[in-house]
Amino acid sequence: MTATLIPVPLPQQAYSVAISSSLTDIGSLLTNPEIQTTKLGQKMVVVSNPQIWKHYGQTVVDSLEKAGFEVTHCILPAGERYKTPKSVQKIYDHALAQRLERSSTLVALGGGVIGDMTGFAAATWLRGIAVVQIPTSLLAMVDAAIGGKTGVNHPQGKNLIGAFHQPRLVLVDPNTLATLPRREFRAGMAEVIKYGVIWDRELFEELESCDRIDQLRFLAPALLTKILTRSCQAKADVVSQDEKEGGLRAILNYGHTIGHAIESLTHYRTFKHGEAVALGMIAAGHIAVELGLWSTEDLDRQQQLILKAGLPTQLPDDFPSADVADLLLTDKKVKDGKVRFILPTKIGAVTITDQVPKAAIKKSLEPMLSGA
Amino acid sequence: MTATLIPVPLPQQAYSVAISSSLTDIGSLLTNPEIQTTKLGQKMVVVSNPQIWKHYGQTVVDSLEKAGFEVTHCILPAGERYKTPKSVQKIYDHALAQRLERSSTLVALGGGVIGDMTGFAAATWLRGIAVVQIPTSLLAMVDAAIGGKTGVNHPQGKNLIGAFHQPRLVLVDPNTLATLPRREFRAGMAEVIKYGVIWDRELFEELESCDRIDQLRFLAPALLTKILTRSCQAKADVVSQDEKEGGLRAILNYGHTIGHAIESLTHYRTFKHGEAVALGMIAAGHIAVELGLWSTEDLDRQQQLILKAGLPTQLPDDFPSADVADLLLTDKKVKDGKVRFILPTKIGAVTITDQVPKAAIKKSLEPMLSGA
Ligand SMILES: NC(=O)c1ccc[n+]([C@@H]2O[C@H](COP(=O)([O-])OP(=O)(O)OC[C@H]3O[C@@H](n4cnc5c(N)ncnc54)[C@H](O)[C@@H]3O)[C@@H](O)[C@H]2O)c1
Ligand SMILES: NC(=O)c1ccc[n+]([C@@H]2O[C@H](COP(=O)([O-])OP(=O)(O)OC[C@H]3O[C@@H](n4cnc5c(N)ncnc54)[C@H](O)[C@@H]3O)[C@@H](O)[C@H]2O)c1
Ligand SMILES: [Zn+2]
Ligand SMILES: [Zn+2]
Repeated sequence: MTATLIPVPLPQQAYSVAISSSLTDIGSLLTNPEIQTTKLGQKMVVVSNPQIWKHYGQTVVDSLEKAGFEVTHCILPAGERYKTPKSVQKIYDHALAQRLERSSTLVALGGGVIGDMTGFAAATWLRGIAVVQIPTSLLAMVDAAIGGKTGVNHPQGKNLIGAFHQPRLVLVDPNTLATLPRREFRAGMAEVIKYGVIWDRELFEELESCDRIDQLRFLAPALLTKILTRSCQAKADVVSQDEKEGGLRAILNYGHTIGHAIESLTHYRTFKHGEAVALGMIAAGHIAVELGLWSTEDLDRQQQLILKAGLPTQLPDDFPSADVADLLLTDKKVKDGKVRFILPTKIGAVTITDQVPKAAIKKSLEPMLSGA
Repeated sequence: MTATLIPVPLPQQAYSVAISSSLTDIGSLLTNPEIQTTKLGQKMVVVSNPQIWKHYGQTVVDSLEKAGFEVTHCILPAGERYKTPKSVQKIYDHALAQRLERSSTLVALGGGVIGDMTGFAAATWLRGIAVVQIPTSLLAMVDAAIGGKTGVNHPQGKNLIGAFHQPRLVLVDPNTLATLPRREFRAGMAEVIKYGVIWDRELFEELESCDRIDQLRFLAPALLTKILTRSCQAKADVVSQDEKEGGLRAILNYGHTIGHAIESLTHYRTFKHGEAVALGMIAAGHIAVELGLWSTEDLDRQQQLILKAGLPTQLPDDFPSADVADLLLTDKKVKDGKVRFILPTKIGAVTITDQVPKAAIKKSLEPMLSGA
């Protein structure tokens, strides 16, 4: 076993993100008393979706069984539209049928959808049982699986129902990305670029030094591992300094303020989340330059990286860009009509401000409108 | 305002149980910066059931509005059988319609059923918003409202779905007990007696000194307040030493081990929870005496108090007492075939043991079988 361990030193529950090129490590990682200081109980339920289960289910189960766990699985339909209380209910029913105990563990094997639902079921079954995250999408590896945010959607809003519940371990196996659809890979890369801009200049420069970053096959294994490690480290750093989003954690929303507005105004149909975040980062970058906080040179470097990742840099022809500022201002999180923006000040550092004029928001979208 | 404040000094979130003979205090308690060190947001939703709402809803709303809050209400059907994910969904729907924010507050006005559901909705809406408990049943005042256990039932088991989520304030107004059905009052008294046995000898002796404790009207206001205060203090003491049931909190299960078995074997139809706990305390008392841990004299004092509270001391004619031990031994919480019992050692102190012979369990039920 040659896993790289990234500690997430939260006061209530410290845990590790293990980057390892073999899923078969999961059993030994979970029985290693230095990694699991509180022993896990025998019963485990692997939660996954049909595609992911087909590729990786048996490997995970075999490894867990070899380590002495008693394993069953619960397969939920794939897709964001199944990230609902109803799917969680299915996990509950399985937990009941298997007579899970306080000491039992749910293992999420999948992307952010499976991770969020499984985490939420674990947060609420018997008032909280252990959860282990095995993220299989790039986005889940570098973002969703780390930090303890769990939840499901309400028919009228994303992630409205949820809880904070930290995992006992996150296992990232870069090899599982081999089967991830390419567009999902690129979408995840947007969050990687985000960490470069907000937190880790070296990561950003590492990405710049690559020939291509738009497909997995262009990244040599060592480089991929390095990118994953630094991204997970960035998320772990931020989260362990601010578990419940009281302050610092807000910087993870870089590109997300306008990104969410773009997702919403295109009815979640045109862009993947990561694609909207890429557009949001471009907009935020322009605002930062407009306010004199950031250099046009750095803004351009960000633009090049987004392009290199094969991410969109243009809004659709019919995009109602005039509506973005209004949408942001009527958002429920807005206080006193002031939208909070995360804006870069250099590569690797951001500032938080609610002093962005409405006109600057509108202007920031112009370079992404067709014809621009 | 003349509220007695009992602190619940939990590390993550300290809060108070306020005993006050006026519900109209709620507004000022929630705007007092010494009691609410983190200011509550403006929006509040009072959750209740039709009966309780009819008696106390307007008073609570008026007080909150007078204090500057923006208040709506969400009324759920009464009864344990509605303590379900579906009822919580109704709270979510209301929260969405009212556009509740992270800073908004749910106010539970009712017995343990309303308190548990409202607490769970608050634990999981937007990953956790504030909840205030205004318990109106004796059981909720001295037990359910304090300590942060929240949850709902799964069709196949009680409280299987839940979370720990501490309230921001608990307001106990003894006057609301005036409308509580008598049998509910007596059932709540079982938990009061429990605190006397496990934690607070003075409380026990206070109850002994009363002429009658089986109906509210026999308790002078000052005495009632004293009983409530000491009971809440007992729960607060135990919970603040062990928030998530790692150790000490288990003593609150005195009378509950066999009590739960009795509830289950009578299909939750014959006894109220408190009544089953009374029977469970009698059984546990007998076991303690049998094992030489407790005196027959103290056991008899407990028996007298239970009788005085108008609580049952007899099992039904057809009660399958031989099944109790087996049921306990096959319970999912049992480890290595050993059931954990809380047993009194004197009035005001207990011990925890898993060394109770099966025969002693059976024998402990005999004095409660008819003809005995
Ligand atoms: N909890 C958090 O902190 C957090 C952070 C960011 C996003 N999220 C949530 O994560 C979700 C998005 O995550 P996502 O982008 O992983 O989406 P996803 O889970 O839907 O995965 C995307 C698609 O890729 C497939 N897939 C995943 N891994 C695969 C693999 N190795 N091989 C083949 N197919 C694979 C999935 O089946 C799915 O069809 C959203 O619901 C979002 O709200 C949560
Ligand atoms: N969270 C905890 O720590 C904890 C502890 C103990 C019990 N509980 C839960 O509490 C519930 C039992 O609580 P309960 O005994 O209060 O039951 P309950 O909430 O059902 O109330 C009992 C009955 O009394 C009525 N009622 C309550 N207050 C009234 C008033 N002032 N006037 C008129 N009618 C009134 C209710 O409408 C109901 O019909 C169970 O679901 C149990 O699981 C939770
Ligand atoms: Zn994101
Ligand atoms: Zn009880």
